Order: sequence, then C-alpha cells, then structure tokens
Amino acid sequence: MSETRGRFITFEGGEGVGKSTQIRRLADILRRRGLDVLVTREPGGSPGAEAVRHVLLSGHAEDYGVRMEALLFAAARSDHVEQVIRPAIDDNTIVLCDRFMDSSRIYQGVTGNLEPDFVRNLERVAVNGLVPDLTLIIDLPAEIGLRRARSRGGATAGAPDRFEREEVATHEKRREGFRDLAQSEPRRCRLIDGQQSEDAVALAILTAVEPILPAAAGGRSGGQGAS
Amino acid sequence: MSETRGRFITFEGGEGVGKSTQIRRLADILRRRGLDVLVTREPGGSPGAEAVRHVLLSGHAEDYGVRMEALLFAAARSDHVEQVIRPAIDDNTIVLCDRFMDSSRIYQGVTGNLEPDFVRNLERVAVNGLVPDLTLIIDLPAEIGLRRARSRGGATAGAPDRFEREEVATHEKRREGFRDLAQSEPRRCRLIDGQQSEDAVALAILTAVEPILPAAAGGRSGGQGAS
Repeated sequence: MSETRGRFITFEGGEGVGKSTQIRRLADILRRRGLDVLVTREPGGSPGAEAVRHVLLSGHAEDYGVRMEALLFAAARSDHVEQVIRPAIDDNTIVLCDRFMDSSRIYQGVTGNLEPDFVRNLERVAVNGLVPDLTLIIDLPAEIGLRRARSRGGATAGAPDRFEREEVATHEKRREGFRDLAQSEPRRCRLIDGQQSEDAVALAILTAVEPILPAAAGGRSGGQGAS
Repeated sequence: MSETRGRFITFEGGEGVGKSTQIRRLADILRRRGLDVLVTREPGGSPGAEAVRHVLLSGHAEDYGVRMEALLFAAARSDHVEQVIRPAIDDNTIVLCDRFMDSSRIYQGVTGNLEPDFVRNLERVAVNGLVPDLTLIIDLPAEIGLRRARSRGGATAGAPDRFEREEVATHEKRREGFRDLAQSEPRRCRLIDGQQSEDAVALAILTAVEPILPAAAGGRSGGQGAS
C-alpha cells in the first residue's frame, strides 16, 4: 500500500454486534494520533445515495423485485464510492465505513435468494475496483445480537414468537455467512469476537488495524500491510 | 426457440430514425394476424422503473456520477424485465420494446465515457439472461435524424451553431456504434436502412421479423428462428 493515500476500513456483522460503538472508539484513537478520519455508513453517505435510499424506503418499494432492489443498493454504493470514499482515500484520510459490499453478499446473496453470480457481478460494478484494505467482522451469536438490538428499541420489538424464531434462524444463517467470508478471505477480513468486553473488542480491532496504518501515524509496524 | 413462448423484439437507433412509427405499424400487422402484442419502452415501463426515472429526472440528477446514473438505468431495466417483459413473453406475447440494452451500450459505453467492461457487466446483471430474439437497428445519417427530431419540436431546437455541430458529431459516433453492433452480432441484429420510404422500412422490418414468429401466426418460415 502506498504511504501517500489513506486507508479504507469496513465494519461488518449482524444486528446489535456493536459496530457503531467500535467505529466511534477507533475513530477517536486514530484522530488522537493526528490522522484524518472519515466515518460513514451504508446505505447512504452521499446525496445521490440518499436519493436512492428514498426510493428504497418509498411506499412502492415492496412491489420491487429483489434484483431491482439489489441494483438500487448498488447504485447508492457506486455514488458513495465515487463521490465520498475514493476522494477521501486519495486525500490521505482513513475511511471507516459501517457496512459495505460484504453486507450485500450476506443479506442479498446468503439470505436474500439472489444467485451468488448475480451478487458478485453487481459488486464488481458497484465498487469499481475499490476493495477495503481491511474488513473487521464482529461476530456474535444471533440471539445475543438481536437481544441487544431490541433493548435499544429496534424495529423488531414486540414481534410475535413464530416470527422471532424465524428471525433468529435467518440471523444465524447470516452469522455463518460472515464467518465463512472471514475464512475465505483471511488477508482482507478479520473475525473479531464480539462476546468479549467492549474494551477487549476495541483492543482486538486496534491490533488488527495497526499493521495497515500509514507509517506517519507512528505505528511500529506501519506500512507492513496485511492486505 | 420454443413455440409456446412469445418473442422479444427491440428497436434501436439514434434520435428521429422513426422507431415509434415503425413499432406502431408492426404492432398493427401482428395484431391483425391474431398475435398478442405488447408495446413498451425504456427508460420506464413498470412502476419500479418509473420511480427510478423520477430519481433520474430529479433536480439533483446532475450531481450524480456517470456510474450511478448507469446503475439507475440498469435498476429500471431489471424491474422492467422481471415485472413486465419476461412475464409477457412467458404468456405467449410478442413484446416490441423501444430501446433496450443496446442503447446503454451506445449512449453510455460509446459516447458516455464508461469503460466497455463496466457496461457489459452491468448489462449482464440488468437483463439476467433475457436477450432479445431480434434487434432492429434503424440506420439514418445523424443530420437527417436530428432534423426530423427537431421538426417535431425536440428539446434541441434553437441551440447555438457550435453546440449543434458537436451534437451532430456525437450522434454520428452513436450511429457508427449501432452499425458496428449490427456487424458484430449478425444473428440477433438487423440493420434497416432508414432513408427508404416509410412503407419500404415497414416492409424491411416485417421481412426481418417473419422468420422468428411463432408458427401459429401463419408465417411460412415460422419457427426457423434467426437467433
């Protein structure tokens, strides 16, 4: 990796695994080291992506086919990449993004009934060569993550029992998808045990991030890129 | 081609070449033969595609990147294919579509500064295996087509000379793109000389269409598919 560009770090995992908290903590640490940090998230993150988000959330969205929906997510991602993420990286900024292409692989490919080929082709088009330098996958049993998401007032609060059971099964399938991903792309992806204390998770994340930071940040192993 | 499915015929070419007139004439002829005919057009043609069209035409659209725009066109196409075109073909209908994937190849790939690989990957995702049985490319010198488009009150009326000259050059580039396409995919595409009389163009189109019509329509060579 070049020393004159930023880095692109994505956070993935199921609901309630603690992504936002950990992104905030990592951003604080990196900023205290004098690095420029941009925190962003999907879907959204740029004006065009927000316009598409509006279509996705509009009253007609339930009539859209799964392919149309996946293409709209890809359009939003493409805009986010070209208007926000790539310019920031070129400007020597560390970009921390809450969900990116792997969420599409899992939510649309593993549990969304889209053919893996379709999802991969679409990913190639949307990211246009911009692959994360590092992807941190926070791993947590589905029922723990769902309980956490509910306790902060998630949309699933009060759902009926049968639906809740189906939901746990779906989330567990996604968790397995994320774990498989970490195994199949070990250079880019790190699996982080989300059952540890919040501090321990933050330390595990920092340990994974340090080797890929630009040398100027003072990291002892800076520049010895892991990807 | 199966005899128990409809057919998918697309019309392509630059502005003012006479696509709508010829689609109307062909639809009339086929309906008089007792065939079910659906006339549709892009962009649009389904509720989801119309919603995307709204985003494309909104005030913010000029801020979108070319990739985002291409992905939105693809999302609209995907919805049009899955919600309208494919079900109609499965229901034994002859679908006549004003512009389809080849317009993206030419407008976005040839004159839109997008890499051919990007355009092809996106096409594959959007059409999801549904390739036209026949594509009729109406060919006309750019200045004639532009003059015709203007005479019916096109948006370019009254443009300054320099812009008009640039415009002719762009349209001529598209015309060459369409001609190259006809040469490179001779089984699917037929180049129709648009400088003939309207009747002669209609006859040339019917001659190209007859071999691919279902046998039940009474075509002498029905079922001897050209593609």
